[in-house]
Amino acid sequence: MSRFFSKKYQNLKAYTPGEQPRDMQYIKLNTNESPYPPSPSVLPSVEAEAEKLALYSDPECTALVSEAAALFGIERSEILMTNGSDEILNFAFMAFCDADHPIVFPDITYGFYPVFAQLGGIPYETIPLKEDFTIDVNDYIGIGKNIVIANPNAPTGLALTLDEIEKIVASNPENIVVIDEAYVDFGAQSAVGLTKKYENLLVTQTFSKSRSMAGARLGFGIACRALIADLCTVKYSTNPYNVNRMTMAAGTAALRENAYYMENCKKIEQTRAYTKKALEEMGFFVTDSKANFLFAKSDRISGETLYRELKKRGVLVRHFSAERICEYNRITVGTREQMDVFLDRTREILSEMQ
Amino acid sequence: MSRFFSKKYQNLKAYTPGEQPRDMQYIKLNTNESPYPPSPSVLPSVEAEAEKLALYSDPECTALVSEAAALFGIERSEILMTNGSDEILNFAFMAFCDADHPIVFPDITYGFYPVFAQLGGIPYETIPLKEDFTIDVNDYIGIGKNIVIANPNAPTGLALTLDEIEKIVASNPENIVVIDEAYVDFGAQSAVGLTKKYENLLVTQTFSKSRSMAGARLGFGIACRALIADLCTVKYSTNPYNVNRMTMAAGTAALRENAYYMENCKKIEQTRAYTKKALEEMGFFVTDSKANFLFAKSDRISGETLYRELKKRGVLVRHFSAERICEYNRITVGTREQMDVFLDRTREILSEMQ
Repeated sequence: MSRFFSKKYQNLKAYTPGEQPRDMQYIKLNTNESPYPPSPSVLPSVEAEAEKLALYSDPECTALVSEAAALFGIERSEILMTNGSDEILNFAFMAFCDADHPIVFPDITYGFYPVFAQLGGIPYETIPLKEDFTIDVNDYIGIGKNIVIANPNAPTGLALTLDEIEKIVASNPENIVVIDEAYVDFGAQSAVGLTKKYENLLVTQTFSKSRSMAGARLGFGIACRALIADLCTVKYSTNPYNVNRMTMAAGTAALRENAYYMENCKKIEQTRAYTKKALEEMGFFVTDSKANFLFAKSDRISGETLYRELKKRGVLVRHFSAERICEYNRITVGTREQMDVFLDRTREILSEMQ
Repeated sequence: MSRFFSKKYQNLKAYTPGEQPRDMQYIKLNTNESPYPPSPSVLPSVEAEAEKLALYSDPECTALVSEAAALFGIERSEILMTNGSDEILNFAFMAFCDADHPIVFPDITYGFYPVFAQLGGIPYETIPLKEDFTIDVNDYIGIGKNIVIANPNAPTGLALTLDEIEKIVASNPENIVVIDEAYVDFGAQSAVGLTKKYENLLVTQTFSKSRSMAGARLGFGIACRALIADLCTVKYSTNPYNVNRMTMAAGTAALRENAYYMENCKKIEQTRAYTKKALEEMGFFVTDSKANFLFAKSDRISGETLYRELKKRGVLVRHFSAERICEYNRITVGTREQMDVFLDRTREILSEMQ
């Protein structure tokens, strides 16, 4: 840290992205990427756009926004595109939270929420998940504070129902509720429809998981027009050209081929069920994940040991050191073939432990 | 504005990007883009990378940073890549400014500086340019506050010498000096070399102007290792994957073909001289711009009238309504052919005024 670094950030603990080691070829099951490539027209769309790179991208993302509005059945003024969904989440913390408007979220959830809060000098509280890692909806009913909930939650994969989400939103009319739906396409219920009814609801999604575009950096938020206008003010005060031309073209093409991605989601759900069953047969406890990852632990091996042994054998999964979840690993659902390798390696490791 | 928007932003006035009207084909001389396409290997590099879009981009931008470090003769730890140079500028305001560390900049300069300051709740002061729009270096010597100076300045195009920059940096050892070199490649002197000597200097540059990549969104900052580490803390607390795969590949390819871009800069300098002379022959006053734009006014027509008449005739230039510069227009230097159209239209307009 330099002596010039602002005192407000002296205790800021930045987010740690999943590791990307380059010492060997790994089966990457650690950052919840899709094992499937983008849809057929993405590549030609990017190529056509790359020829126009000398010109600024459209700050309003006109074509992309139109396509998304049509797909989600909303108005163009009810959506904002961002450089990944981390950006729309940060914008939401900036726009709606401050010293007088704290935010709450579960103790076990996406690790970036406390970082955004610290970055913005925003007071925050965490609410413990229940023993079984589910969210107790009653903890959030009428809490009178801003709320962010990942649904499905990460790294547990557990989802709230739409009714539960609605109860939380409806009971906190003076506060913003952000529902982070990064993983919603893998079997949970989206709250996008509720944005028509509640002016305090912001739903965020990403192209990084179900739409095979983690490397393109594209996310978005859907809310009533007034909330989106506020988020736009923050965007135009931060980085007006936040989405580049190539990503914009890729995203537009992807939305036009939505069926391809929804088909991939179905495949991932099937592979998830297959992998879960196999892990349970090995004695693992596995949560009922509605996301493109599994969250699993075994009494026969510590979470950290399994992570390390898998890494030695060329399989990367994500291990978190937080006390409540340190016996678990989060395992991205890849292709059936990738999961078979993961399962084989896990069986090997367990048998060598005996 | 929604009733949820944080009070800290109630007076925030966002930046206004240059207009992008779609009602007809314009000759775009309003946002300082390059009239030349990216270098030959950019497109194939983007295409190769687009096939890997399902995987996250490298948060450390390893290949791109290595290429830039080699070109600029610095260490890898002395540079940070960002989503356009607006992002590195915002990171600098965030990292080094706060209520106790205000920032100063000229009254006429890049319109985003006051926005970044307002966004961060940072006190700022503007220092008037001299009557001839030059910066009085003495105004900044030992001022004891953080400083941001665009060099060359926008929209005047006027540049400080490296000696002048060094005097400012050396006389403010307890404060950060940011030199925004968005336009440096068109004839001004870069301060990158001074970052080896001064631990309080941050130099920012962009791929949007001289490197024909406004649509790719890529910028960077160069400073001593400790300042870059602080800026990295902000980046990893904001958007770790801030640069997408395609832009990273495009930038890496561009740096490998640096000679192509430097050749284009020379052409633009020649076209700038040609256009300046022609405008002066029409009676315009034109500043001694070292950037890829001209800043010009005429006693025969108001700045706003000329802007409007040119737009009617299919030529977009940038007009600013601030009092000191409202008689001027900022005209991007395009190709010789584009500038001939601009000059012809301007002659037409002036002759019709008589």
